[in-house]
Amino acid sequence: MAKVNKNFENLVPSYLFAEIAKRVNEFVKANPDKPVIRLGIGDVTRPLAPVVVDAMKKGCDELAVKETFKGYPDYEGYEFARQAIADYYKTFGVSVDKDEILINDGAKSDAGNITDIFSQDNVVLVTDPVYPVYVDTNIMGGRKIIYADANEENGFNASPDPSVHADLIYLCSPNNPTGAAMNEEQLKAWVDYALANDAIIFYDAAYESFITEDGIPRSIYAIEGSRKCAIEMCSLSKTAGFTGTRCGYTVIPKELEMDGTNIYKLWYRRQSTKFNGVSYPVQCGLAAVFSEEGLKQIQENLKYYQENARIIAKTMDECGVKYTGGINSPYIWFKCPGGKSSWEFFDYMLNTINVVGTPGEGFGENGKGWFRLTAFGDRENTIEAMRRFKEMLSK
Amino acid sequence: MAKVNKNFENLVPSYLFAEIAKRVNEFVKANPDKPVIRLGIGDVTRPLAPVVVDAMKKGCDELAVKETFKGYPDYEGYEFARQAIADYYKTFGVSVDKDEILINDGAKSDAGNITDIFSQDNVVLVTDPVYPVYVDTNIMGGRKIIYADANEENGFNASPDPSVHADLIYLCSPNNPTGAAMNEEQLKAWVDYALANDAIIFYDAAYESFITEDGIPRSIYAIEGSRKCAIEMCSLSKTAGFTGTRCGYTVIPKELEMDGTNIYKLWYRRQSTKFNGVSYPVQCGLAAVFSEEGLKQIQENLKYYQENARIIAKTMDECGVKYTGGINSPYIWFKCPGGKSSWEFFDYMLNTINVVGTPGEGFGENGKGWFRLTAFGDRENTIEAMRRFKEMLSK
Repeated sequence: MAKVNKNFENLVPSYLFAEIAKRVNEFVKANPDKPVIRLGIGDVTRPLAPVVVDAMKKGCDELAVKETFKGYPDYEGYEFARQAIADYYKTFGVSVDKDEILINDGAKSDAGNITDIFSQDNVVLVTDPVYPVYVDTNIMGGRKIIYADANEENGFNASPDPSVHADLIYLCSPNNPTGAAMNEEQLKAWVDYALANDAIIFYDAAYESFITEDGIPRSIYAIEGSRKCAIEMCSLSKTAGFTGTRCGYTVIPKELEMDGTNIYKLWYRRQSTKFNGVSYPVQCGLAAVFSEEGLKQIQENLKYYQENARIIAKTMDECGVKYTGGINSPYIWFKCPGGKSSWEFFDYMLNTINVVGTPGEGFGENGKGWFRLTAFGDRENTIEAMRRFKEMLSK
Repeated sequence: MAKVNKNFENLVPSYLFAEIAKRVNEFVKANPDKPVIRLGIGDVTRPLAPVVVDAMKKGCDELAVKETFKGYPDYEGYEFARQAIADYYKTFGVSVDKDEILINDGAKSDAGNITDIFSQDNVVLVTDPVYPVYVDTNIMGGRKIIYADANEENGFNASPDPSVHADLIYLCSPNNPTGAAMNEEQLKAWVDYALANDAIIFYDAAYESFITEDGIPRSIYAIEGSRKCAIEMCSLSKTAGFTGTRCGYTVIPKELEMDGTNIYKLWYRRQSTKFNGVSYPVQCGLAAVFSEEGLKQIQENLKYYQENARIIAKTMDECGVKYTGGINSPYIWFKCPGGKSSWEFFDYMLNTINVVGTPGEGFGENGKGWFRLTAFGDRENTIEAMRRFKEMLSK
């Protein structure tokens, strides 16, 4: 009999967003006259930059003509697209060669699939709270997972514990869900830990474009020694509103060797066998994002979201609510006022001011009693939600 | 230390296309005046249908405007796109519900990734010759692989052996590389075998749109009992020239249960964790392919390739060369004349008439002494190549 992968039985059913939807739907049904503002979800809402849309349409047009038609793309992405990414890295002072970049259909795919090239027999370290994909994908693979605490004491930036050994390490900075961003020293501590443990770091830089402060690295390759231990994954989802367009990239330094094996070559073998590259018009869009005009245009949306984040963070300041994020991140992660649990606060906020957020405990033990709001909403709604928020807490 | 997946060491390095490129490059360098005709590769060359390009561009335009902007797609694909596929199935009399369809970035991804939901402890059966992806992806997963012989005696349509047990079965019809297509009886034998063994068939229907003869099923779901044992994978790569546009789909009947588990739900869990759906403009293109106008327009390219296939097959007939394919398939798989080995014939053809094909032994033991030509080339080149082929054999 065909036997299924029983590791799937160890997955915790993902009730979080389903439970949120259920409670919101019940509320809306019972209160059809009360407009609900949703600041819970991590999806963008602003349209693509014009130069990106033009490039994608031009790409489509090329597919319509025999002379410019494109068949199978390179597994690792077109050279023009990889070069555009390498040039983008230069804009914040990081040197990555185009031949170390592999373009994909979004960072989530690679964050999950990268485990294909590693043995089941590895200890995986994630931070708590955590983006659930890192955990679930390794549960599916039957790997042992350990947690590094991110909490109020360390400002939700977990530190490595030299007495604990890990082989594969997932880091996300600026962090989803906490919005906390590691500075150079904090990130260097992880690189040193990885080097000392012959571990590999999977560095999720999906929110790097939200970094505004000096001293917060936009890439792990800004840190000395990282090229010997780190794989970086990034996405255009948040940088350029590509959640529906689907494009991201993974960087594997050519010199990254582990267990006697060149990691780039191993991953390339995986990709060439189980992946067939990214849609040509989408790669045209990616290159346009990183063009001079594209980089200007995407700033408009980024600034829009950053201003939303500032508005939310300012409200937390004014209300004396403890939080992380909001400055180098589209997420604001705050401690539920009044000692409420995450779900108690969810219900309280929904019923009192009709605003929806995400209960922090959906992201792990250390999220209990915490709450996530996102800056991806509408400006007007964000302002109105924060007005109501202040009113709610002043009562 | 991070440990890599050592199963990768068991992969046979894929010398085939690299070796072909090497030999062709050497020939071209030595003979710059001799124009080489390439009929080796399985990539399409005709442009996308106009209605498809228009739909994709319209999709891009929607992403440019806040009101019509699309964020994260559904993991399984947009309903309009899944409905279009379900309607397409109806055109050849097969009933598949839109909620049994999951849209992907190409059949190759799912053909590889589907193994994620199955235990390492399964016996995998493939036919020989075989599309290498089925083999390599299971070697990476550490599974035992057994082979069913496809050869001259059975017209390169392998039959199941009731004395041999398998758990997971890969079938491809019309077949890559042999072009052989199973009739209802032959496919029914596999379905019965799977049911008797509680096995699951992964049915690769990527070339179904090339079927012209009655009695050759376009889908495994035309066969009784298949909904209890089969997952079907298909792609728009060959149907509509999407090799560079990237879109395919997988069908899992809702009632497909194995090992006490609902397979659709298991796969959905995998996809929602490691995949984030397909680009919106690409899904718009997919829906356009299966529109009334789209189905008409893609016929032009299909007929073009079919005529190329007919020209090649006719040449084989005229030369008395044994072959399969060419009728329900863009591939012509022939026995190397003069008892030559695959590589001997490759060199002979390249040197004598400057035509490039694919040595059959690159696809497995049973490919030794056989050779593949494809119908995806230019009409003029195909005619000229066949003129030279006849001349070569008449000498």
